Amino acid sequence: MRLKAERATLLKALAHVQSVVEKRNTIPILANVMIAVRDGQLTLTATDMEIAVVEDITAETSRNGACTAPAATLYEIVRKLPEGAEVELDHPGGDAQLTLRSGRYATSLVVLPTEDFPSMTAGTLPHRFALPALALRGLIDRTRFAISTEETRYYLNGIYLHAAEADGTPVLRAVATDGHRLARVEEPLPEGASGIPGVIVPRKTVGELRKLLDEVSSDVEIALSDTRIQFKVGPITLTSKLIDGTFPEYERVIPRDNDKVLRVGKKDFADAVARVAAISSERSRPVKMALNRDLLVLSASSPDQGTATEELDADHVKYDAGPLEIGFQARYLNDITDQIAGDVEFRFSDGAAPTVVRDAADASALYVLMPMRV
Amino acid sequence: MRLKAERATLLKALAHVQSVVEKRNTIPILANVMIAVRDGQLTLTATDMEIAVVEDITAETSRNGACTAPAATLYEIVRKLPEGAEVELDHPGGDAQLTLRSGRYATSLVVLPTEDFPSMTAGTLPHRFALPALALRGLIDRTRFAISTEETRYYLNGIYLHAAEADGTPVLRAVATDGHRLARVEEPLPEGASGIPGVIVPRKTVGELRKLLDEVSSDVEIALSDTRIQFKVGPITLTSKLIDGTFPEYERVIPRDNDKVLRVGKKDFADAVARVAAISSERSRPVKMALNRDLLVLSASSPDQGTATEELDADHVKYDAGPLEIGFQARYLNDITDQIAGDVEFRFSDGAAPTVVRDAADASALYVLMPMRV
Repeated sequence: MRLKAERATLLKALAHVQSVVEKRNTIPILANVMIAVRDGQLTLTATDMEIAVVEDITAETSRNGACTAPAATLYEIVRKLPEGAEVELDHPGGDAQLTLRSGRYATSLVVLPTEDFPSMTAGTLPHRFALPALALRGLIDRTRFAISTEETRYYLNGIYLHAAEADGTPVLRAVATDGHRLARVEEPLPEGASGIPGVIVPRKTVGELRKLLDEVSSDVEIALSDTRIQFKVGPITLTSKLIDGTFPEYERVIPRDNDKVLRVGKKDFADAVARVAAISSERSRPVKMALNRDLLVLSASSPDQGTATEELDADHVKYDAGPLEIGFQARYLNDITDQIAGDVEFRFSDGAAPTVVRDAADASALYVLMPMRV
Repeated sequence: MRLKAERATLLKALAHVQSVVEKRNTIPILANVMIAVRDGQLTLTATDMEIAVVEDITAETSRNGACTAPAATLYEIVRKLPEGAEVELDHPGGDAQLTLRSGRYATSLVVLPTEDFPSMTAGTLPHRFALPALALRGLIDRTRFAISTEETRYYLNGIYLHAAEADGTPVLRAVATDGHRLARVEEPLPEGASGIPGVIVPRKTVGELRKLLDEVSSDVEIALSDTRIQFKVGPITLTSKLIDGTFPEYERVIPRDNDKVLRVGKKDFADAVARVAAISSERSRPVKMALNRDLLVLSASSPDQGTATEELDADHVKYDAGPLEIGFQARYLNDITDQIAGDVEFRFSDGAAPTVVRDAADASALYVLMPMRV
């Protein structure tokens, strides 16, 4: 293979694919990127055996062929070339080293056989639909914080994506939970998605996909089967295995009858939670919310350091149910408020029962929080 | 004690003093900041028993007194108050908690007895002189990278500051070395500094001082004895113990007769070093410099990954001595070029001998590098 490409083009594509490469690998070839050239097109592929990222870029090619070379090193080298540089890649074939030339700089990189590079076959992907990048970003951002990190509960280590009905309207739903909180977000069901199986997209896939979504605004094409999911984001194809497990019946934990409603300004609430929580460096200490008519008193304490309180009054708070005391982890509250644009709406049952949190300006997202004893 | 202060004023002062507090403390009171109020002035003090930082700020005080409270927590709380907020601190005395109020936020912080707060007495500091903040920054920035981190060679764990003569002119010199490289920087000797003892300023003190210097441009007053050094930076006084040890006779390792001179453009050289070094992730692998008349070839190799070379020709390089090959750690070369503004001047003896590096535009700094076998 032989080709010429602009540094900037090559750097961007290498950044996309090398991101999936694990820093520490016991299988040497997984540290490599596959570089394939065919008739004016350069294709870069990287994989960790769970996820594969493939990017096609147009290049001035003069000999077809393929090789695999160390992904992180190649990325670092291209990154350190001067802006505007032209890069030539040359691999005569076989075990010969890959040569990269740019100006008076040259490097020869050790290659590994392309035959050994694991190909991640997606198999047949019977379900296909498209989602605007912005909608997909919204599904991810409003749920990923609730993904469990407990490896024993592997079936919670991802976002559960499935088709459902909300008030008679078909929707595409993303759900994540770690047992302490749950996030459920909906988009109108795209054409072609009505028959999809419920699938659990792993945390790392969610992270890699999310990075790619920062750069695009067009539609993302999604294809999936029971075991694989594929996202086409512009010139990039991300294929991932799915988590082989059963996501819990989350609807059962969403309370329907919570009737004590608190509405509070988002920024005032989020800032006050952060301030009272600052008294304690222990993450798991709760922030207490004490409610009375149009009055919310937030408080927290630490045996070593002291106590803190902040009042939010009728200027910021609307609440007309009876007095209530309830406690939550500050971080869990702030994870949710980070995703809320309008006012925050809480629906309580009592101080020991799951609480529903919503964005007053956005009906598509719903959060459930388990209280802590205070 | 009781006082009112602007959030911004208090935050800035807390940031300065709490920086010296160690994150993990076995002695609880070292996690605290001392807050002392006397007649319109608030004084904050923090210490780790090696360094003490004291800052005076003007405040609206209504009762004199003092207490100590958790430094990091207080800083976090003040940081999270809204911009423009007014903060009231109130401590009735004794074991009572310190109350901080701002708007509808209030916190009570556990205090520890002021009598237990270690006071770092500077003792008599017979030597006093002043240095412009910019000059002091220059002494630090161009030497600190060479400070040793080997705890067994504790006498190299700081910057050696002393009075010397350079070509018949009295100078203040800062020197640091880790045995692999040495940095020596001079400033004209300030009035009052002629009789100072040679002192070793510890690494942490250098770091804390350097942070404070970012905010000022005026003179810094320096006072010292054999065992203590004190820096007055605006309203802040930093007092530190000195390292009790003997700095090696560094002049003996500075070669005088190196006569093979290379002059190379700084950015071209620094970038080329970084590019060829990118072939290897092992930090200790050398970059080889092969010199011929007006030609420098940089190269590096990694058994796993391959080789890289870059040529710098007569457009960037001036060299008219005989052929020479020599190797250095890339990071050591870049640490020096980071501090160089003009062209880089190397003076070699041979491929195995210490090499002198200078900034062609700055006679006040001199660096010595030990080569590696290539």
